[in-house]
Amino acid sequence: MAEEKGITPRATDYSAWYLDVIDRGDLLDDSPVRGCKVLKPHGYAIWESIQRDLDGRFKATGHQNAYFPLFIPMSFLSKEAEHVEGFAKECAVVTHHRLRSTTDADGKKGVEPDPESELEEPLIVRPTSETIIWHMYGRWIDSWRDLPLLINQWANVVRWEMKTRPFLRTTEFLWQEGHTAHASSAEAVEETVRMLDVYADFARETLAIPVIKGRKSARERFAGAVETYTIEALMQNGWALQAGTSHFLGQNFAKAFDVTFQNEAGVRDHVWATSWGVSTRLVGAVIMTHSDDAGLVLPPKIAPIQVVIVPVYKSDAERESVVNAAHDLKKQLAPHFRVKVDDRDHLRPGAKYFEWERKGVPLRLEIGPRDLASRQAFSARRTGGKKVGLPFDGIVEHVGKTLDEIQAELLAKATAFVASHTFTVASRAEFVKALDDSPGFFKIPWGGDDADEDAIKEETRATVRCLLDDPVDGQTCPLTGKPARQMAIFARAY
Amino acid sequence: MAEEKGITPRATDYSAWYLDVIDRGDLLDDSPVRGCKVLKPHGYAIWESIQRDLDGRFKATGHQNAYFPLFIPMSFLSKEAEHVEGFAKECAVVTHHRLRSTTDADGKKGVEPDPESELEEPLIVRPTSETIIWHMYGRWIDSWRDLPLLINQWANVVRWEMKTRPFLRTTEFLWQEGHTAHASSAEAVEETVRMLDVYADFARETLAIPVIKGRKSARERFAGAVETYTIEALMQNGWALQAGTSHFLGQNFAKAFDVTFQNEAGVRDHVWATSWGVSTRLVGAVIMTHSDDAGLVLPPKIAPIQVVIVPVYKSDAERESVVNAAHDLKKQLAPHFRVKVDDRDHLRPGAKYFEWERKGVPLRLEIGPRDLASRQAFSARRTGGKKVGLPFDGIVEHVGKTLDEIQAELLAKATAFVASHTFTVASRAEFVKALDDSPGFFKIPWGGDDADEDAIKEETRATVRCLLDDPVDGQTCPLTGKPARQMAIFARAY
Repeated sequence: MAEEKGITPRATDYSAWYLDVIDRGDLLDDSPVRGCKVLKPHGYAIWESIQRDLDGRFKATGHQNAYFPLFIPMSFLSKEAEHVEGFAKECAVVTHHRLRSTTDADGKKGVEPDPESELEEPLIVRPTSETIIWHMYGRWIDSWRDLPLLINQWANVVRWEMKTRPFLRTTEFLWQEGHTAHASSAEAVEETVRMLDVYADFARETLAIPVIKGRKSARERFAGAVETYTIEALMQNGWALQAGTSHFLGQNFAKAFDVTFQNEAGVRDHVWATSWGVSTRLVGAVIMTHSDDAGLVLPPKIAPIQVVIVPVYKSDAERESVVNAAHDLKKQLAPHFRVKVDDRDHLRPGAKYFEWERKGVPLRLEIGPRDLASRQAFSARRTGGKKVGLPFDGIVEHVGKTLDEIQAELLAKATAFVASHTFTVASRAEFVKALDDSPGFFKIPWGGDDADEDAIKEETRATVRCLLDDPVDGQTCPLTGKPARQMAIFARAY
Repeated sequence: MAEEKGITPRATDYSAWYLDVIDRGDLLDDSPVRGCKVLKPHGYAIWESIQRDLDGRFKATGHQNAYFPLFIPMSFLSKEAEHVEGFAKECAVVTHHRLRSTTDADGKKGVEPDPESELEEPLIVRPTSETIIWHMYGRWIDSWRDLPLLINQWANVVRWEMKTRPFLRTTEFLWQEGHTAHASSAEAVEETVRMLDVYADFARETLAIPVIKGRKSARERFAGAVETYTIEALMQNGWALQAGTSHFLGQNFAKAFDVTFQNEAGVRDHVWATSWGVSTRLVGAVIMTHSDDAGLVLPPKIAPIQVVIVPVYKSDAERESVVNAAHDLKKQLAPHFRVKVDDRDHLRPGAKYFEWERKGVPLRLEIGPRDLASRQAFSARRTGGKKVGLPFDGIVEHVGKTLDEIQAELLAKATAFVASHTFTVASRAEFVKALDDSPGFFKIPWGGDDADEDAIKEETRATVRCLLDDPVDGQTCPLTGKPARQMAIFARAY
């Protein structure tokens, strides 16, 4: 425990840096199950902050939470042709419902699946819940009065991944999935875009992550969607990260599960659908957007601990007064902020500063005997800058203002980074070179087709992150030489 | 949707009544997966209220949330002998990680588990997480400084059930499981009892359910526990319901997973453990404790909607003013209570009253033109009594006071019910007869052994719900004729 491991600098090895930040920040641990991770308390608490904020936004836009089964009958998956294509290759399959005892040659006892408990139809552990939810919607929807149906689910899902990366891609992950049903195509599209906006606002306002909103190309669309909208963020190494998606599903699932309604004119029609989701991947986005070579940096709005108070003393006599003062301060701050007093006796202040820095606590307050005498706390921001004294009088306001400034500072820095890493290119050669030399978002008046998109991915590992509505009239696509049809953002991506 | 189904009276058929209350209250629906239910928004919202309150109590007692994998390697289960005995018979087993396409004789496409994706070691869908969590604790615990480790997980678990009952027993259910690690037996026992108290306080203060706290007999202990503590509630049919358990696990799991720590004296010892959990079963307990022949009754503290405002009007002219007044009222109440205005145009007030009654909304406010003129809302409590006018002036205080009274009234009624249904008996014959004639808690100075306990269960379907510390000196057990050793509560139970 006590051994101090360093953090690989970003410039040396960005991937190693990411893993180090997570490990030293005590966010996550490996598990004995392939591809699955354990979210440790500090990591899980970030997800709880995200949940709390997003859940409020979902409810404010009229959604209710519900809970559907973890298991999906295998046959359901086949009902929507593209959907099964997309998910069949990565499904955990339950085939038995009981174990029986075994004894090996050495007399060692064990268990094995009981052959007599084999299921008639295997069950899939949900990779996403469209199929089972639309089966249920078929029972719940009959008339236009039952619409719109606006439901969200907080759940775990499983997609068997061969290559995993903490938070970004794991076999089991936590997420929310919204599933809504509407009486018209227009209403469903409106909902799809509304939820994309909710995600984008949340990313900017709460996570301090600026994102680009756009549509996915056909190649990158969700399996079963008519149109997939996405928010794309840019990490510090110039790679893109898909941070959330919102799908217009048309009538695909309603048709697959035969969900119809009687409209106001008395005519029956299939229902229109959307689905949208974000996951614990957002924690990875936060880490990679804001952290530095000293470790984790967290926006105050989601930091599990926003303020840590460290009493600084040399003698037992000093100890009592400064520790008491630290707890008094906590009592004042606690109704407004998430505060911790680090009064551990066996660690020196320097070691505590180091630990909380690595855990991304936005604001540290130090209180020593001299601070006590001058009735102030010495304050250090995780984002750096000069340490300044914050007077005890009005401390709630001082701390609130400081946290607001840190939040704003992180957003401004991330926004400037995206601006300085969004490029245009004049030719394919320039594009290929730039992807290595100065990776980032590449804004391309795109004229290619699916085959061109595949070829570029093959050659450069860059993909269309999203399509924008910006006009491209008369421009020529620098990557294909064809007339531009739409503006695209290309990037290498996680 | 529109057809109005009745509710079977409790006196006619208690089990049918329970299912009717759930159905008409729109809490839950069947799913296509055997033994699994769908928690509909109104049912899930009750669980969200429970979670919010309990989570605060867990954090106030120093616990942090974390998240461990859904899957457990099959071999882990065998490591604790009693544990595997308890859970092997009801495990969902994952054996494959991919599906492959099939085409049947008629050319119909489908999928099947891909034989090439068979797992080397099957995975169990967690029935409870002691094994995987203690595996992880082995990585995290090394010194007394790492203790106590106080972690809780909110999660779904799966226990393959042959006979299911909504909320009370389903194959998949939602719960929380606390898992703590301690440096001494005494500390772990203290934690076990502390969490039992947290559960009992929560049940009484929030759910308005009085419970008996006690220890389980050896027969009823958790698989792998040294001692299981329980809170037992009494339903309106006189059957008991185990509402929460807290286990002292001794060093059983620490030994099974070899988790040791260095104590302050520098000596290594195995760690001491507890685990404790409550589940969506609590929703069933709430329903059966408080509801009546008109449907669901919910304690205000967990009601998803605490106040429903129904505008009452005859003409369009009236409509505008009373609907506006209803929304004004909501605006005043919303910062303090969960409020809904039911301004649906196609339903008459009577139909709305009926619906909200069945959904258990504690307080209904009606506003008609005359109420508007006299600046008051007509109020009706779900628990009955005279309808009274609540003046608009000070409405927040009036509503708050009314909800507090309803909460207190429900607890008082439930407490009186337990008191009037807790019996003593002079003989086994009296006990057998009373179980049929006037079921309830039977307080028995118990002198039997395991075999006696089994025989009584066989004969009467009654079990030892819990053992109490009340003195039994010199008394004779009325069920066995043996000298009493401890006070026991017997009952038939869900």
